[in-house]
Amino acid sequence: MDGYQDLLDRSIEQARPVLARGKVADYIPELSKVDPDLLGVTVVDLNGETISSGDTNVYFTLQSIEKVFALIFALELAGADRVFELVGMEPSGAPFSELSTLGEFSAKPSNPLINAGAIVVSSLLTTLISFDEFLAQVRVLCKNPAINCNEAVFASEYAHSERNHSLAWELKRLKLLVGDLDETLRFYTRSCAISVCAEDLARFASLLAGGGLDFSSGQRVISGNAVRIAEALMFTCGLYDGSGSFAVRVGIPAKSGVGGGIMAVVNHRVGIGAFGSSLDRNGNSIGATAILEYLSNKLGWHIFSHGN
Amino acid sequence: MDGYQDLLDRSIEQARPVLARGKVADYIPELSKVDPDLLGVTVVDLNGETISSGDTNVYFTLQSIEKVFALIFALELAGADRVFELVGMEPSGAPFSELSTLGEFSAKPSNPLINAGAIVVSSLLTTLISFDEFLAQVRVLCKNPAINCNEAVFASEYAHSERNHSLAWELKRLKLLVGDLDETLRFYTRSCAISVCAEDLARFASLLAGGGLDFSSGQRVISGNAVRIAEALMFTCGLYDGSGSFAVRVGIPAKSGVGGGIMAVVNHRVGIGAFGSSLDRNGNSIGATAILEYLSNKLGWHIFSHGN
Amino acid sequence: MDGYQDLLDRSIEQARPVLARGKVADYIPELSKVDPDLLGVTVVDLNGETISSGDTNVYFTLQSIEKVFALIFALELAGADRVFELVGMEPSGAPFSELSTLGEFSAKPSNPLINAGAIVVSSLLTTLISFDEFLAQVRVLCKNPAINCNEAVFASEYAHSERNHSLAWELKRLKLLVGDLDETLRFYTRSCAISVCAEDLARFASLLAGGGLDFSSGQRVISGNAVRIAEALMFTCGLYDGSGSFAVRVGIPAKSGVGGGIMAVVNHRVGIGAFGSSLDRNGNSIGATAILEYLSNKLGWHIFSHGN
Amino acid sequence: MDGYQDLLDRSIEQARPVLARGKVADYIPELSKVDPDLLGVTVVDLNGETISSGDTNVYFTLQSIEKVFALIFALELAGADRVFELVGMEPSGAPFSELSTLGEFSAKPSNPLINAGAIVVSSLLTTLISFDEFLAQVRVLCKNPAINCNEAVFASEYAHSERNHSLAWELKRLKLLVGDLDETLRFYTRSCAISVCAEDLARFASLLAGGGLDFSSGQRVISGNAVRIAEALMFTCGLYDGSGSFAVRVGIPAKSGVGGGIMAVVNHRVGIGAFGSSLDRNGNSIGATAILEYLSNKLGWHIFSHGN
Repeated sequence: MDGYQDLLDRSIEQARPVLARGKVADYIPELSKVDPDLLGVTVVDLNGETISSGDTNVYFTLQSIEKVFALIFALELAGADRVFELVGMEPSGAPFSELSTLGEFSAKPSNPLINAGAIVVSSLLTTLISFDEFLAQVRVLCKNPAINCNEAVFASEYAHSERNHSLAWELKRLKLLVGDLDETLRFYTRSCAISVCAEDLARFASLLAGGGLDFSSGQRVISGNAVRIAEALMFTCGLYDGSGSFAVRVGIPAKSGVGGGIMAVVNHRVGIGAFGSSLDRNGNSIGATAILEYLSNKLGWHIFSHGN
Repeated sequence: MDGYQDLLDRSIEQARPVLARGKVADYIPELSKVDPDLLGVTVVDLNGETISSGDTNVYFTLQSIEKVFALIFALELAGADRVFELVGMEPSGAPFSELSTLGEFSAKPSNPLINAGAIVVSSLLTTLISFDEFLAQVRVLCKNPAINCNEAVFASEYAHSERNHSLAWELKRLKLLVGDLDETLRFYTRSCAISVCAEDLARFASLLAGGGLDFSSGQRVISGNAVRIAEALMFTCGLYDGSGSFAVRVGIPAKSGVGGGIMAVVNHRVGIGAFGSSLDRNGNSIGATAILEYLSNKLGWHIFSHGN
Repeated sequence: MDGYQDLLDRSIEQARPVLARGKVADYIPELSKVDPDLLGVTVVDLNGETISSGDTNVYFTLQSIEKVFALIFALELAGADRVFELVGMEPSGAPFSELSTLGEFSAKPSNPLINAGAIVVSSLLTTLISFDEFLAQVRVLCKNPAINCNEAVFASEYAHSERNHSLAWELKRLKLLVGDLDETLRFYTRSCAISVCAEDLARFASLLAGGGLDFSSGQRVISGNAVRIAEALMFTCGLYDGSGSFAVRVGIPAKSGVGGGIMAVVNHRVGIGAFGSSLDRNGNSIGATAILEYLSNKLGWHIFSHGN
Repeated sequence: MDGYQDLLDRSIEQARPVLARGKVADYIPELSKVDPDLLGVTVVDLNGETISSGDTNVYFTLQSIEKVFALIFALELAGADRVFELVGMEPSGAPFSELSTLGEFSAKPSNPLINAGAIVVSSLLTTLISFDEFLAQVRVLCKNPAINCNEAVFASEYAHSERNHSLAWELKRLKLLVGDLDETLRFYTRSCAISVCAEDLARFASLLAGGGLDFSSGQRVISGNAVRIAEALMFTCGLYDGSGSFAVRVGIPAKSGVGGGIMAVVNHRVGIGAFGSSLDRNGNSIGATAILEYLSNKLGWHIFSHGN
């Protein structure tokens, strides 16, 4: 990865001026306290070589990025057929503000990367593993045993989870909630509150880039099938209502969270974790998006790149 | 392409049994007359080597596949900035039956591959080229000077184009219709009625697979930038409300039309034209989809494929 | 009320043939067991003179008719200003199947006669009276101390109240649920399960026809202001998505429930209770509607009637 | 009408302070030029006695008030069965800003008092009478032979009628447009541009108050059936998304137009024409509404009034 350090440093610098155009998530006090000027990016290649720039050891909560972990665990434990009985595969086209409304689905939620779909997946997981087992697996995939749930964020989000309760009851009516409703919401909210840093996301992403094979150990940690499904859904639905624009401009599978993180995958090459808590109107980290667009252009990461 | 002939033949055979689950488009008499049992697939590699199986010289109308040609011409002639002032880049999430309703857009149409977006693009094109020039370019990209507009289909579709007139007037209200309204609708409807065969689509797709460079002549015929944008949008929005499922299961940029064709691209490898007039409930050729899924699985075409 | 007996008898007979076009509510087993051929109508004038025809002593549950009692109690106890801080006054235009979805409201529910609005009103009532007090007041207004809650219907509806739970959580998010959520839903569901007969409804309706003054006792039992508001809302929103058609064809304030009852008011003249458990596609009793349309035409009840 | 002059004068004075809360329609230049401080009200009783206060001879365009004339003519000429084959009777629940969108109807427009429904009615009328005959009838019903179309407003509205063209094409698709599309839109737009004053509206309204019988001449000018239907629809749908609130607070059938007029009916008593060009957020004259609410309260006009 010669030259990467310099590129990462420059990606941070060119991203800094756009931060002022966004703002930190403020729907709970715990998120609004985060410093909006923090920025960091880590790239990890298939062999585990790691290059970082900026604030890559600052912890933030996974938020929607947990949806990728949850989807992969559900695919591995219950199988794709079972998962897609309960949730669709289609982009929802819903704006960020309505992303979690009931209006977005009729028979079942559009896909596992919107709130309603992720609640369905969490409910399925509650019938298969405990939250502690979920957390343990996140630690394994991020190769960081220090990862924990941020209990203050969890408590605050749970206390403000009326919309998710509303969704869960509607999902129950549709017979899509296979586990207990309250346990599902605690499991889901807790998984969103798992605290990671950019390096953690990059290590997880590098496993996806390797198709689920850990090159350093030679062990398969995720099936190729689960990685393929997760990446296809990240590509089409990973950045809320900015997914299409990200697909055109950056062109790699990625998943954002309102905690400020974006996890992105360059298949067969590297995993990336980017962080910046200032969000655009779609709820995506404005700094992390700028970093990824810069790097994708410089390094030819776009999956449909052909030069000019 | 050793072994391709045999694979293509088998792809046709395994697709045949599913045809009965769909039905031919019947919104105008001219389309409903097509034989539902026709099936064909052609693969063309970057050097122009061509392998076909089934009914690959039967002509059908482009219908929504024209949206890819139109998008590329608009990107080349007016530039991406101008195109995306008028139309978005996001998957619409709209079901097939509502794909062309006004409800789907507020400020501007979601993307250039839905009817409203394509009407905007056609309107822009009317200010830049004549329809004859459009048709001439389609002939060039498909390398078939015999391609023509099916005037009977055009006349019938134009006589049934109330919805498109309704969309066009709404687009005019939003100041997104830059050309004359009637001329725009004639241009758009006529481009949908251009008649091609599977081989034509495969030759066009092979140019996209080569990033816009014609390897046989060494000439650049489309800019890499336009190809990249078109492929990203095809991947996220190319198959109506089945786009997400196609991305997960087949995993290559593609565009379908209700004439029964699907044009698909395996970057750096091959272009594919598949045809079968029986459509699924999303309006996608049920046979062509089955052919492409079979070939993608057998040949590892999925863009996020990692084995199992 | 000379000649009324004969008219009521004939209203029943002419309604009988249309019953087969509808069907009994079947969303819970307890409702689906009702005999679809029962039909009854009672008219009570301002002095309490009562004329009945058919099955007017058969008990059925209030269902949505409770919304009128609840609205009146809330107006009396909390005042119109407070009630309309929490809920609107506009017809919703929502079809029956979506009557209780979240999609129908943004800032607050459209009106107190749809489920979401009635849950808001019930929540307000839980902060003011107990359910036993609510029931006691229903007995007073219907002049029938034997009225009770059907506990089997309550239990069954509560066990199938996912949609109402979903609505209640969304209302809580919007700060419109002023009482405890679970208590609100029990209160609301229990009030829907109050069991009455056509004569009970007619006695209540005759009080409304008298503007809230009980002519037999000379006592005011409801304020004229509350009656006016309730009647205006019944006229515009009382029969789900059939409200407009009922206003044009029958032209009197009325409220239906899926238990099969319709309570209707001819101001300064009579109150009517009509019953028939077979429902039309809007959820209104098909027999009771036919009875009321017949009587309105014969007796010139239409509020905008001018002869022909 | 002893004491009316004084009440009308006071109704104007108490309405004046609220005018500043609204604003004049500005979607075409011709409407935006109107003086926002003009206010007037005329009451005409069944015998033609007329009392006015304020600017009751200032002319403004009918705009949506034409929908009542058009509905009545269509009912008289084609019959209610034919009219309601093409348009519904239900309140739409649509906010003002969406009142004319396609989204509001599926099989047919909700009612004849929204734009889509009125276009359907106009189309039906074009097959029965010329616009000159329409205008002649308006003159007769308003008893003012000087009434004319404001050609400047017509020309400006027609030049800005993209939304109506869009609606008309969608209605044509649904086979609800029985006349020629362009002729329908010219007829409809021209009828909206008919210029009247408050006294004209009051004279027309007094005919409705008399059930269609002209007491001064003893002649029936509108059938009682048409009056009844028009009044029922005015009561439930006459003031856009403020219809429910108006029904609760004022409680008489009325129809507003964005030209600033409101025509209202107190059955068996009086017709009212009120005018004030400053509009509330629903598109209703803020001054005329205040005048009508004041008079309704003082004179006990509310159709469900019972005192307090």
